[in-house]
Amino acid sequence: MEPSLIKKIAAIVGDAHVTTSREDLACYSYDGTGLTYPPAAVAFPGDVAEVAALLHLAAEFRFPVVPRGAGTGMTGGALAVNGGLVIAMARFNRILEIDTENQVAVVEPGVITGEFQAAVRRENLYYPPDPASLKFCTMGGNVAECAGGPSAVKYGVTRDYVLGLEVVLPGGAVMNTGVRTAKGVVGYDLTRLLVGSEGTLGVITKITVRLLSLPEARNTFLVLVASLQQATSLVSRILKSGILPCTLEYMDRTALKVVAPMLSEPLPDKTEALLLVEVDGDGAGVIEQSSRLVRFLAGKPGIIEMRRAEEGAEVEALWAARRAISPASFRIKPHKMGEDVVVPRTRIPDLVDFTETLSRELGLDILTFGHAGDGNIHVNIMYDRNDSAEDLRARDAREKIFAHVVGLGGTISGEHGVGITKAAFISSELDSVEIDIMEKIKKVFDPLGILNPGKIFSSS
Amino acid sequence: MEPSLIKKIAAIVGDAHVTTSREDLACYSYDGTGLTYPPAAVAFPGDVAEVAALLHLAAEFRFPVVPRGAGTGMTGGALAVNGGLVIAMARFNRILEIDTENQVAVVEPGVITGEFQAAVRRENLYYPPDPASLKFCTMGGNVAECAGGPSAVKYGVTRDYVLGLEVVLPGGAVMNTGVRTAKGVVGYDLTRLLVGSEGTLGVITKITVRLLSLPEARNTFLVLVASLQQATSLVSRILKSGILPCTLEYMDRTALKVVAPMLSEPLPDKTEALLLVEVDGDGAGVIEQSSRLVRFLAGKPGIIEMRRAEEGAEVEALWAARRAISPASFRIKPHKMGEDVVVPRTRIPDLVDFTETLSRELGLDILTFGHAGDGNIHVNIMYDRNDSAEDLRARDAREKIFAHVVGLGGTISGEHGVGITKAAFISSELDSVEIDIMEKIKKVFDPLGILNPGKIFSSS
Repeated sequence: MEPSLIKKIAAIVGDAHVTTSREDLACYSYDGTGLTYPPAAVAFPGDVAEVAALLHLAAEFRFPVVPRGAGTGMTGGALAVNGGLVIAMARFNRILEIDTENQVAVVEPGVITGEFQAAVRRENLYYPPDPASLKFCTMGGNVAECAGGPSAVKYGVTRDYVLGLEVVLPGGAVMNTGVRTAKGVVGYDLTRLLVGSEGTLGVITKITVRLLSLPEARNTFLVLVASLQQATSLVSRILKSGILPCTLEYMDRTALKVVAPMLSEPLPDKTEALLLVEVDGDGAGVIEQSSRLVRFLAGKPGIIEMRRAEEGAEVEALWAARRAISPASFRIKPHKMGEDVVVPRTRIPDLVDFTETLSRELGLDILTFGHAGDGNIHVNIMYDRNDSAEDLRARDAREKIFAHVVGLGGTISGEHGVGITKAAFISSELDSVEIDIMEKIKKVFDPLGILNPGKIFSSS
Repeated sequence: MEPSLIKKIAAIVGDAHVTTSREDLACYSYDGTGLTYPPAAVAFPGDVAEVAALLHLAAEFRFPVVPRGAGTGMTGGALAVNGGLVIAMARFNRILEIDTENQVAVVEPGVITGEFQAAVRRENLYYPPDPASLKFCTMGGNVAECAGGPSAVKYGVTRDYVLGLEVVLPGGAVMNTGVRTAKGVVGYDLTRLLVGSEGTLGVITKITVRLLSLPEARNTFLVLVASLQQATSLVSRILKSGILPCTLEYMDRTALKVVAPMLSEPLPDKTEALLLVEVDGDGAGVIEQSSRLVRFLAGKPGIIEMRRAEEGAEVEALWAARRAISPASFRIKPHKMGEDVVVPRTRIPDLVDFTETLSRELGLDILTFGHAGDGNIHVNIMYDRNDSAEDLRARDAREKIFAHVVGLGGTISGEHGVGITKAAFISSELDSVEIDIMEKIKKVFDPLGILNPGKIFSSS
């Protein structure tokens, strides 16, 4: 990037809020994929007017702009694959309003999701979306990717909480979408079009979300099962029985091995899978749902042990272990393809059969775990990128898993998005008419193709 | 429309499934607004290929096409304002699949919402959206308008249940959007863009929805209050207290007078407002929520009477009365402007104050009632269109109410959509950047501007 251009950027955000130093660029060149693409510069705008001026400048001088939250994304959404300017939203870190009476909040995109949850909890309110990275990831990134998490089985995903947005469009126009009321149907639903658009349509500068009353109580159950098929086949049956857990996760044997050191006590040897089930609500409701769950699971084949985890230390250890699976999986191999496929709940046993067979056939460690209640399974293919034969086998495994998932009536991404890592695969799931419409919508927002280029569409 | 064109339409759908008779056209020229616009012809396609062929023909000969469900819309979405061909979706009336294990269903757009609800209820499943017209309206129309209903306060609106769509685009291409799983974030969210797009982007031919387990129990409470302000000020406080009713409706004095003959017993004279509150869930949960509600309301100022309605006849009578307010309001005057504004819940008392003052000042009967829990208030301005002075006063009232609602942080439509009746007002709520993007999206889908023209955008 020309020094004169850097000067213009500095004139907008201030000298202190732009950097081109190699060390700084390195910090903004990676994300959760482990891939790295250094940008030419990173700017830290302080308000919406500065974001608008940056996007105006980008249009004038035709340089790529990549909005960035905490860089925890799993598909490369925040990577500057064509270089250009990273707009880091870290200074947009204020919770602007928590309206406790109407159960609505307004936040800036750089607010850390876990901190926002804690802030509303202090007001006896609840913001459910809970991606595993919630201690680091930001609300803006969550909206851009439509983040989910374990609570989605009962409470839905980010899309279900966003009421309205302020976004800066390519060229610098500022647009307000949506409402701050429970309902609103005036014009097209641009709010939900922007949610999950992976930073390709606009830069989010303000987010209005709805909140719920904080559930009063929660019980956590640990179910150890002697077979993965038996464990996963319980999932749709639990939900069909009328129990609606707020968590219905599973971990396979490999995932359990990876996080075993974090658990409060060793698991019995024959444990092949763990179900983590939580129910929440008011006190009476939790007691009722808990006793139904225990009655339902009693005597089901394959159950080695089922017990309520102790509030406090044990529940926290379980959650720490659950959230650590993804980072801890690098104990097995240096690289990972971390996919987040979704299948109809009844097809999870079929999917885990398929990945286990594939794992044996290809000689790869493939962990599966995740949001079983949604059919949203995290499939982590562990490999060494520098071993070219293993790299090929890992790619082969991924392609076969995607094809199998689509064949089961599923989708290749439940919460991570497409980014760059799945761009080559979207045509296996979406029809050509749909992709054509999406690409035209991209052009409506970004006619010059300079906002977060190279994402979602393999042709862009 | 040229006879040669009618022949071509007949060649697509069969002679028996197209009509140009004056009597038939009259039946397809009106909707819930009371406005009438006769189309040139009505076709009743029998499958997606026929819909595609009709849209292909329309593009070739440039005639307007207006998709139509049951014609219960409140803003003119199904009216052939520029003439042309009405595509009546009545033959798309099959429930294609109810997957009880995965709690997903696939329906054609002409299925009547209430019949679909009954069908899934037989499988112990629940499809919550419940517009007042549910015995007549169709799933396709509900998706096109993003219909809500009383259950939205707890369960959300149509948008929250639609997982995927099959739609025919202008020109005749068939597009599949979305997923049939609980999550899915591959590409832009065209499903939610289409929900609420009022038939202006494509003709819906298939709908995939998620379902819930049927709540086991429900209690219905009737709360009679001596002042409308006192009644409406309770709404946000009930929700804040942690009670999440599945119904939180109110009716004002005028609405009560209109439906009084349908109630099982006369109301005390001093009744100025009625709250209809329901809680649902499993047996223990309903008992707990009910006792909390009773404790919460006990001794609150203005409450004349609070009691649980008898299951069966009394609850049915209450609901019949609630759903009859809109049609029964014509007992007051021959015409109605039936608006469905939304304000933050805490501002409902302000809104009802405003409408009561306006009613007195302008000498108009204005009923307010509706989904108080969402802040979604049905404001029915009753008038006689043929009395030109009254017509002017009614228009004046509507404009003032819309401005007041937007000033309170609300929206001019929570569930009816814009159609033709609110097209002139969208710029009071949406900013010009947003309207520009919406109009460009319309052009992406419908470059010739022949699908349901004249709706949403006053310029189209």
